Amino acid sequence: MKKLILDLDTGVDDALAISYALGSPEVELIGITGTYGNVLLDQGVRNALAVTDLLGHPEVRVYKGLPHSSTIDSFTVGEISAFIHGANGIGDVDIPDSGRAPEAEPAVDFIIDAVKTYGKDLVYVPTGPMTNIAAALAKAPEIKDEIGRIVLMGGALTVPGNCNACMEANISQDPEAANALFHSGAPVTMIGLDVTLRTLLTYKETQRWRDLNTKAGDFLADMTDFYIKAYETTSPHLGGCGLHDPLAVAVAVDPTLVDTLDINMKVDLEGPTRGRTIGDEKRLNEPALTTKVAVGVDVPRFLDEFMTRITALAKHAG
Amino acid sequence: MKKLILDLDTGVDDALAISYALGSPEVELIGITGTYGNVLLDQGVRNALAVTDLLGHPEVRVYKGLPHSSTIDSFTVGEISAFIHGANGIGDVDIPDSGRAPEAEPAVDFIIDAVKTYGKDLVYVPTGPMTNIAAALAKAPEIKDEIGRIVLMGGALTVPGNCNACMEANISQDPEAANALFHSGAPVTMIGLDVTLRTLLTYKETQRWRDLNTKAGDFLADMTDFYIKAYETTSPHLGGCGLHDPLAVAVAVDPTLVDTLDINMKVDLEGPTRGRTIGDEKRLNEPALTTKVAVGVDVPRFLDEFMTRITALAKHAG
Repeated sequence: MKKLILDLDTGVDDALAISYALGSPEVELIGITGTYGNVLLDQGVRNALAVTDLLGHPEVRVYKGLPHSSTIDSFTVGEISAFIHGANGIGDVDIPDSGRAPEAEPAVDFIIDAVKTYGKDLVYVPTGPMTNIAAALAKAPEIKDEIGRIVLMGGALTVPGNCNACMEANISQDPEAANALFHSGAPVTMIGLDVTLRTLLTYKETQRWRDLNTKAGDFLADMTDFYIKAYETTSPHLGGCGLHDPLAVAVAVDPTLVDTLDINMKVDLEGPTRGRTIGDEKRLNEPALTTKVAVGVDVPRFLDEFMTRITALAKHAG
Repeated sequence: MKKLILDLDTGVDDALAISYALGSPEVELIGITGTYGNVLLDQGVRNALAVTDLLGHPEVRVYKGLPHSSTIDSFTVGEISAFIHGANGIGDVDIPDSGRAPEAEPAVDFIIDAVKTYGKDLVYVPTGPMTNIAAALAKAPEIKDEIGRIVLMGGALTVPGNCNACMEANISQDPEAANALFHSGAPVTMIGLDVTLRTLLTYKETQRWRDLNTKAGDFLADMTDFYIKAYETTSPHLGGCGLHDPLAVAVAVDPTLVDTLDINMKVDLEGPTRGRTIGDEKRLNEPALTTKVAVGVDVPRFLDEFMTRITALAKHAG
């Protein structure tokens, strides 16, 4: 069975990503590595533990990753992140702290160990900055050839960014790490705004979770409604909220959900386009293309899988 | 039979585009409309007349288009254009002036008339700024639904620009016109740097033209060698020159040469990304997608068609 590691800055869509993974019988979620972004590292780890408990899966281990990019000394949550995900990251919904603590092993070591153990069966899904995976690749470069695939949520190739005209939020937190990942030779699938802004959720769908009359269903509905409400302000033209992180998990489970373009990518590190993910003109004609960028998505099929899997999970979690 | 109009700022690859069109029995080149860019309007018109004569096709009519974009008062050729295409636009190779003059009818009116006459059989191929077609669409908006297709060379969606990180040269001359074209609803295929930087020509190929021992073969070889030499300075990583304009003509003749992405496009008009061609996030989920952007190209097949068609033409032109 395919093994999944999710690398999360557990905000709202990260919690939906956990739900999608736990609702997918084709994969085993063997761990969550914590990162920073939507929230601080510690808050994200707290949320990951609490959410897995609430969803009835206290067996999922959570590992602490790096608290900030290698280019800065400390990380502070952006105002817009708090607006979109709530101050606590999960739509300001109160859920009980977990009795569990994160594992003692650092996330970077866990990632390397998991590659050594599961090899091509392992899919790693970072939905925040690429800081942890870049550190793992720097520490053990050989894992680039050993890992099954890295399916990241981040970037924007064929559409503008969401931080500015060029920069997407996850990449913005650590452009250097994302650039290192693209140049590492590891097999990467990029799930960017190109596709995640096409897969929209509305209050109609969250109502189905609320109608379950379960704790998990109420939590998912309340949290996601907060997120949809924020989107009404930030992206009123969309008519719903983007399902960024869950789409990356869905593609890790079933790659046929998206159409991809094979292209060697880079991240601009200097000037006004800093943080832009774009084809690397210097590696355009190389025979080995290591990155697949999703440029099309089967929206109805994904939304159907999304609702079916998460609704079943929220029903049975109680 | 499919009817073609080429809209050219006749520099080196524009002359190769004329050659490709004249070497394609599937299409009839019914006219060339002149624009500015690689050279001034008048120089480009002079070159189009002289090149069609030299290639044995003095029946091709040439029409004068607009001399500059609507946002400026006059156009001057950029230093880099003269470096790449030569001061005379055709690699500083001397060929006789044509005895013919351009037609009296303005290019914009000719375009509109041709759409009215040929309708869906007409393919319009602008390989310079989009000034003429934008003016035609402004004057007769209904032609958007009547024309067969517009296959433009310009822009860059998945790779950086060639003027700066965001801006491709043709779009840079008139971003407003290109943006108007993308928003017009006309059926557009964009052949940008995404694909034209993959289709490279080297001295090995131009030698085949030289070996023909014809005036046309010598002209094409000398002119293109100038262009390849400029590329050695501007883009040493490529190992050849990009076949920008001929690829657009090739796709007009045979759309199956490229893989395309259906996406509604826009051109950034403000700020540091001015001139960037990018998916329009506000029209991302509209049901009608009017633009196809080439993101993949069958390089061996195109190069084979390119050499076969142009070599045969240069042989028979004498």
